[in-house]
Amino acid sequence: MAGEFDNFEEILNDHIPVDKLKYVKRILYGAELESLEFSAEAQALASDKGFEVKGYVFPAAKETTRSPRVVRVAGIQNKIVLPTTASVVEQRDAMHKRIKDILHCAALCGVNIICMQEAWTMPFAFCTREKQPWCEFAESAEHGPTTKLLQELAMQYNMVIISPILEREEDRGDVLQNTAVVITNTGNVLGKSRKNHIPRVGDFNESTYYMEGNTGHKVFDTNFGKVAINICYGRHHPQNWMLYGLNGAEIVFNPSATVGALSEPLWSIEARNAAIANSYFTVAINRVGMEVFPNEFTSADGKPAHKDFGHFYGSSYITGPDGARTPSLSRTKDGLIIAEIDLNQCRQVKDKWGFRMTQRLDLYIQELNSIMKPDWKPDIVKETADK
Amino acid sequence: MAGEFDNFEEILNDHIPVDKLKYVKRILYGAELESLEFSAEAQALASDKGFEVKGYVFPAAKETTRSPRVVRVAGIQNKIVLPTTASVVEQRDAMHKRIKDILHCAALCGVNIICMQEAWTMPFAFCTREKQPWCEFAESAEHGPTTKLLQELAMQYNMVIISPILEREEDRGDVLQNTAVVITNTGNVLGKSRKNHIPRVGDFNESTYYMEGNTGHKVFDTNFGKVAINICYGRHHPQNWMLYGLNGAEIVFNPSATVGALSEPLWSIEARNAAIANSYFTVAINRVGMEVFPNEFTSADGKPAHKDFGHFYGSSYITGPDGARTPSLSRTKDGLIIAEIDLNQCRQVKDKWGFRMTQRLDLYIQELNSIMKPDWKPDIVKETADK
Repeated sequence: MAGEFDNFEEILNDHIPVDKLKYVKRILYGAELESLEFSAEAQALASDKGFEVKGYVFPAAKETTRSPRVVRVAGIQNKIVLPTTASVVEQRDAMHKRIKDILHCAALCGVNIICMQEAWTMPFAFCTREKQPWCEFAESAEHGPTTKLLQELAMQYNMVIISPILEREEDRGDVLQNTAVVITNTGNVLGKSRKNHIPRVGDFNESTYYMEGNTGHKVFDTNFGKVAINICYGRHHPQNWMLYGLNGAEIVFNPSATVGALSEPLWSIEARNAAIANSYFTVAINRVGMEVFPNEFTSADGKPAHKDFGHFYGSSYITGPDGARTPSLSRTKDGLIIAEIDLNQCRQVKDKWGFRMTQRLDLYIQELNSIMKPDWKPDIVKETADK
Repeated sequence: MAGEFDNFEEILNDHIPVDKLKYVKRILYGAELESLEFSAEAQALASDKGFEVKGYVFPAAKETTRSPRVVRVAGIQNKIVLPTTASVVEQRDAMHKRIKDILHCAALCGVNIICMQEAWTMPFAFCTREKQPWCEFAESAEHGPTTKLLQELAMQYNMVIISPILEREEDRGDVLQNTAVVITNTGNVLGKSRKNHIPRVGDFNESTYYMEGNTGHKVFDTNFGKVAINICYGRHHPQNWMLYGLNGAEIVFNPSATVGALSEPLWSIEARNAAIANSYFTVAINRVGMEVFPNEFTSADGKPAHKDFGHFYGSSYITGPDGARTPSLSRTKDGLIIAEIDLNQCRQVKDKWGFRMTQRLDLYIQELNSIMKPDWKPDIVKETADK
């Protein structure tokens, strides 16, 4: 990717002396995380197929009344495989093949729960505002070819798979939705969770294709932990993260598609802040690369029409409830990020920091209820002549 | 400060080559901010009195229907001046003298609105759980010696001064409060804002001294912008930041007192996330240094009793509504951080990103209202045998 550097952390590692690097990383990342080692077979597969695989261990304390609940969670970031001029079926099948390889590697690495990037079966074509052929990528969450494929793999690998797709609600007027499908390790569709907040910024013309999600803030109680999915732009809304926490989530995935000039300085802040504020783990996943479309489109930025959208900067990372985070995956390469976590750490951090106990929800409900009244006035104290 | 390094950013500046440093800073800090230059008189005063002064310019676009609303906002971080064994009056007077010098420098730098650190007139003695002599530092928000001093200086310097103190509510049963007093540039007490969330973690035994604040989320419409104050531990609560935003704040100050081992990896995340999520400016202020108390106390961490509390790591910084932030002040030295901002940038970022428009408050109020009902059950989808 011309002009794009690959990895932020490598710059730090290459130039800062070891004794100072320790301080820098403590400030930037929090508690130090050990690396996970994977089998030669897993490493060979990743190397052969051209993607990174990185793993880290989040330490938790031992408890006397609960056994550890150690699981491995993961996220996948990747480029599209075929040019956007290939047929819809060819493009989707090529993505299926690519993800099959990475899921196979994840299985070799002992992953229990995994999530792909937002709308993973397709290019992020919403920049074009064209309906065809892009709407054809939409499929049934329950019966589509992507779900069918993943049900088989979930059973084969004993893995919970979270599959963010463009959904076609066939039974409800063929409406499109931006949806994450939760497939259990027994191969069942446990349910789905939709994107609650839809952007209208830059090339993200998604409100042209689908509306705000109507599935609320469901948490899915899987065999490997309670998970929820906050899709892409929902990460900018702390109240969205909070409601997943209030429903009991232990891990919240944030499958995304976002580009450098727009959001990169925000990327390392938002999912991490959510982990801290809600005492749970977050897995932030972004796609990689530049996507070039057949017809030109404009970006509402005063610049000439063009055919490319990106650079999607990857940089997927995982954060623990104490704010400790992994380094990021590459900004330019496909990759698989894995964390070994003890779900018990969520409650341990709640007991230590007490954010839930001190949350004062009653105060906020009262204030928010009055804000929604037509005669509400903001609580502003103004300087007056006689004050 | 033995064993404490002084400045995180200096390590980056010293070791990373210029071409790569540009990338690193873009990822870490967002849009590049130019430095503000100050007069020789201001610099000499800072140097003579032994504190840092740093300033930055946040750029905003020109508009055609509104003139720029450029103001200079600032925060002060500092160590206590006298040993905690000095008398209460001596300690307070020494702090007054120290802050007078720094406020004088701020005036020379053209500052319009300034905020001191939490409970700035006293050591952060809440670690001791002793009531005497520490409660004697409390004073009236309206008529206390600290407010009186600052009213004079506010008029003299034409400056809005936000003064976070331990308040004694003399007319309401002598109760203590953790309160920020807002003093206008005309020398009036415009009002006060109390700490909404009180910690129970580590040495922060503040719930022994005062209760959760009862002033809600007031915004103060001063001659230099609409300001609010989120005191210390309130920064861990995104819903707290949100309500100041909903009431129209353009700048939210976060006067704090927090120590390295506990919160440092969270420090650069939370106030910055709040600026992003709410499209306003935030000023995060932390005290500096180690404070040693006359009697020993324990820290509920299994370790022996001791007399020291700290290291408070300073690192005060300012963030804009687009997520761009200044470097931090020192981790060990007193300092004054200043930003020249155009308040118009808040609305510009709202128009671009649309976080307020897409906030869906009605959805959250509905869900929160049901959460408060006694028969509420979390929205959990569980795998069942027949699923």
